[in-house]
Amino acid sequence: MNKSIFYHAGCPVCVSAEQDIISLIGADHIEVVHLAEQKERIDEAEKAGVRSVPALLTPSGNVLHLNFGASIADVKA
Amino acid sequence: MNKSIFYHAGCPVCVSAEQDIISLIGADHIEVVHLAEQKERIDEAEKAGVRSVPALLTPSGNVLHLNFGASIADVKA
Repeated sequence: MNKSIFYHAGCPVCVSAEQDIISLIGADHIEVVHLAEQKERIDEAEKAGVRSVPALLTPSGNVLHLNFGASIADVKA
Repeated sequence: MNKSIFYHAGCPVCVSAEQDIISLIGADHIEVVHLAEQKERIDEAEKAGVRSVPALLTPSGNVLHLNFGASIADVKA
């Protein structure tokens, strides 16, 4: 199984969702990307369909927006 | 590990998210509840914190709202 990518920006909603997702899927199956610290990956996230964080990009290429922490526009600011 | 509960209402967003979640977590770890067909469980979902579907109630009691298909108010209608 390919890895999922969990995009977040350090917000409380993000951290809570990250813990839930790691607990459900397993840390070995997830790459965690902090977009506020890795702004060079925002473009990649947007192209994948990420409109807000936290979000999980699945191995099949679908994006699951998990609750709502911040929009990508907020992360860019 | 206790099971998660995936609440949905048959909407296209719900079905897509259901397939992703089952693929990520495994069908054995999820109970799927169709709230439009099991309206007697809407109250339980609301008490757990579900405000829209699709949503995943984790074994730890947290609710992850996955994208947005319909509000609970819509499901009740």
